[in-house]
Amino acid sequence: MHERIKCEKYLSKVMSADEAAKLIYPNAVIGMSGFTPAGHAKAVPLAIARRAEATGEQLNLTVMTGASVGDEIDGALTRSGAMKRRTPYQTNSTVRNAINAGEIDYFDVHLSQVAVWAKNGFFGDIDFAIVEISGIDEEGHLIPSTSIGAANTYIECAKHVILEVNTTQPESLRGIHDVYTVERVPNSKPIPIIHADDRVGTDYYPCDFDKIAAIVYSDIPDHGRAVQPVDDISQKIADNIIELITKETQAGRLPVPLPPLQSGVGGVANAVLAGLKASDFTDLKVYSEVLQDAVFDLIDAGKISFASGTSLTVSPDFEEHYKANFENYRDKIMLRPQEISNHPEVIRRLGVIAMNTAIEADIFGNVNSSHINGTRIMNGIGGSGDFAQNAGLSIFMTPSTAKNGTLSCIVPFVTHVDHTEHDIHFLVTEYGYADLRCTTPLERARKIIDICAHPDFRPQLHDYLDRACAQCAHKHTPQLLSEVFQGK
Amino acid sequence: MHERIKCEKYLSKVMSADEAAKLIYPNAVIGMSGFTPAGHAKAVPLAIARRAEATGEQLNLTVMTGASVGDEIDGALTRSGAMKRRTPYQTNSTVRNAINAGEIDYFDVHLSQVAVWAKNGFFGDIDFAIVEISGIDEEGHLIPSTSIGAANTYIECAKHVILEVNTTQPESLRGIHDVYTVERVPNSKPIPIIHADDRVGTDYYPCDFDKIAAIVYSDIPDHGRAVQPVDDISQKIADNIIELITKETQAGRLPVPLPPLQSGVGGVANAVLAGLKASDFTDLKVYSEVLQDAVFDLIDAGKISFASGTSLTVSPDFEEHYKANFENYRDKIMLRPQEISNHPEVIRRLGVIAMNTAIEADIFGNVNSSHINGTRIMNGIGGSGDFAQNAGLSIFMTPSTAKNGTLSCIVPFVTHVDHTEHDIHFLVTEYGYADLRCTTPLERARKIIDICAHPDFRPQLHDYLDRACAQCAHKHTPQLLSEVFQGK
Repeated sequence: MHERIKCEKYLSKVMSADEAAKLIYPNAVIGMSGFTPAGHAKAVPLAIARRAEATGEQLNLTVMTGASVGDEIDGALTRSGAMKRRTPYQTNSTVRNAINAGEIDYFDVHLSQVAVWAKNGFFGDIDFAIVEISGIDEEGHLIPSTSIGAANTYIECAKHVILEVNTTQPESLRGIHDVYTVERVPNSKPIPIIHADDRVGTDYYPCDFDKIAAIVYSDIPDHGRAVQPVDDISQKIADNIIELITKETQAGRLPVPLPPLQSGVGGVANAVLAGLKASDFTDLKVYSEVLQDAVFDLIDAGKISFASGTSLTVSPDFEEHYKANFENYRDKIMLRPQEISNHPEVIRRLGVIAMNTAIEADIFGNVNSSHINGTRIMNGIGGSGDFAQNAGLSIFMTPSTAKNGTLSCIVPFVTHVDHTEHDIHFLVTEYGYADLRCTTPLERARKIIDICAHPDFRPQLHDYLDRACAQCAHKHTPQLLSEVFQGK
Repeated sequence: MHERIKCEKYLSKVMSADEAAKLIYPNAVIGMSGFTPAGHAKAVPLAIARRAEATGEQLNLTVMTGASVGDEIDGALTRSGAMKRRTPYQTNSTVRNAINAGEIDYFDVHLSQVAVWAKNGFFGDIDFAIVEISGIDEEGHLIPSTSIGAANTYIECAKHVILEVNTTQPESLRGIHDVYTVERVPNSKPIPIIHADDRVGTDYYPCDFDKIAAIVYSDIPDHGRAVQPVDDISQKIADNIIELITKETQAGRLPVPLPPLQSGVGGVANAVLAGLKASDFTDLKVYSEVLQDAVFDLIDAGKISFASGTSLTVSPDFEEHYKANFENYRDKIMLRPQEISNHPEVIRRLGVIAMNTAIEADIFGNVNSSHINGTRIMNGIGGSGDFAQNAGLSIFMTPSTAKNGTLSCIVPFVTHVDHTEHDIHFLVTEYGYADLRCTTPLERARKIIDICAHPDFRPQLHDYLDRACAQCAHKHTPQLLSEVFQGK
């Protein structure tokens, strides 16, 4: 174990997770590593949960992360009652249910803003950073593990730092990280990234030795999630996306090679990448959040020449291949802080092609990506706003229906707005893609109904629009507001 | 007149406005100079209107501008029937009524995106740029007049350029412009602006001589609008904004000197600047869109050390003073393209304090800034999204009521969303300021009702929220959707 800590003076800080957990005081604000179940702190949060359960103390913790994390944080700290507040993104059903039950207070922040807000003091004092690393080198450099997320910022801003040296994370990760931080206003400078593969920072977390309160060994592995199989609808959505991208290049509105791609996690994203693998596009770049199986598959195929993200997670099925071939991937991947992977400046400069998922979209092009029926939070906005607001091409996708075809995902008025009509260029369902650029609200509505809505729902959507056009005194955005949420 | 064209070969292109108007062909897409009634093309659009009226042709023009322009474009081209489509922003009542009557098609675009979309071909071919300039120098450089807006982009992208040399614009404007354009992806580079006063471009519009189809003399002046008087409510809103900014600096969340200020146009903006004049703040900077009377007043007072915008307009009352003192202002002001004045990269880097006006806001912090009752478009989103999404401090302000106190501007659900809960830090009314950062939806709702809503409307808003909390199965964002638009 100790071979992971190559700088001797750091050994004096080693203690057990339970001892480290005792350092946490009630009402603490804690920033933890972790982004889309990878590289999150594990041993110490579990120990905090054990402590809370054993003592019955009201710890009342505020827990901040990069994005979604594993059950070791969101599950254990919810069940133990140790966590009272949570931000900025979550996907664990235990914490989500607690949030929707009103038991845990959650607030939703653009992922690119977490670092800005932390540095500006919007979160108040950050008491602890609890950060997983893969080791400490001879110079005392902290080597990140499978994600960066906001860990660099939490280390920078926290009063105390607790490190988890995870011995299950391969030491070969050394060198794939690029830790760069934007200085606080008024000292902020241009981010010198001009290409997706530009290296601009260090391959370790800078950290004041005196701030380190504890170093804990952990042997709890990341749990890569199984890749969602590509169903028929996802495949059709992906086909439509490939088609629209192809047509944009043919029309000269997108350069070739393509600008870097951003995509969320899941079946459609995988199907899009699979489609690109079969396409004529080459020299593909990724400038996204999460690097998953499909990215490595396209590196294998010689299609992706570089992939930048903030998190790296592969499914159990893919793990063996990934590990065996890691040296082939090493110089084609990079993990950056989420402040940089999601930074408006870089996204706009690179002209990223952003592909994000909608829960529902309305006929005027507004997108709900966070709430079921306007009241039940799912995961949060995540990085979708960072990308959609600044993308060279902003694509939102959704199946045309939900609940086995009984609900239309295309509605007259979304029950919650995360992305406005101003920040969406294409809406895509399995039925087609609607180009919403340079369209009036009425033109948009007709396109979305005729192209994207499920044919079964088109008549009632047209009926709504026709009546709105007829009855509204003002014709710019025809709406019958009194009926849009009837029965909700 | 000819002394305004100092490079002889350009004289060969001079013709009358009516001759130039004949060059315009049906269905043309035209990009015109002009931003918040300043520096807009005047003589040629009036001549196009005359032509359309005289001949009865269906010209079917698409007219793009920087932002709002004078009646010479929006009034004349609407009345003459020459204009069929309009983007990205308008404030003229003639065109607004035509849009809401369904007679003119209008689409709404973030002002920072206009240049990006034009360069990427999203608008299709741009047939003509019609741009007001104040002169042409010995080297053939085109000297802008009182705004830049998107004129540089239209000149770059259009097939044909028509110039209006406006002899009423003072030649002393030479030198206040900084024309910089971001190259199209994949050649885009960091914008090297680190301080509001950094000069990074040329003081003229680059333009291929061969693209110039006509040069027209114009003596139609800009019509500066009278400054709205500061009423009691605006004064209170401004006082609240000054107070919150002061408290943010005291808490260390805002640096001193303050980051640059962005503010819209109108009474509250003027009252805020007047309040800053009376405050202890010094070395103020402006990084905004429109430079108006109050900015010059604060330069006079030694409070504003530099002001960057894309448009310069003073009221008739202030004009004499402004002209007499112009040489004092010259090195303290700069006009940039709206691509740069509104660029997310620069706004985020500078940590701009953004102050924008809401038509209505909901208790969860979503803002409607473009539509009355969800259907009637007012002016468009303008630059408010560019600034709100990227500001170091994003403030939205509104009087608590409209229609003589009969309507609450704080509602359960806004009838149109232009800015989501994610992009607003403070909501301010005459009753106070609600800090919405790091708050759950429920916390936000209580703050907004108790602090911002008019006391007469607080009981019914609380009643709504209480019932929503009681009746909603999901407590994260308690809503009773079926009643939010009742009676609308």
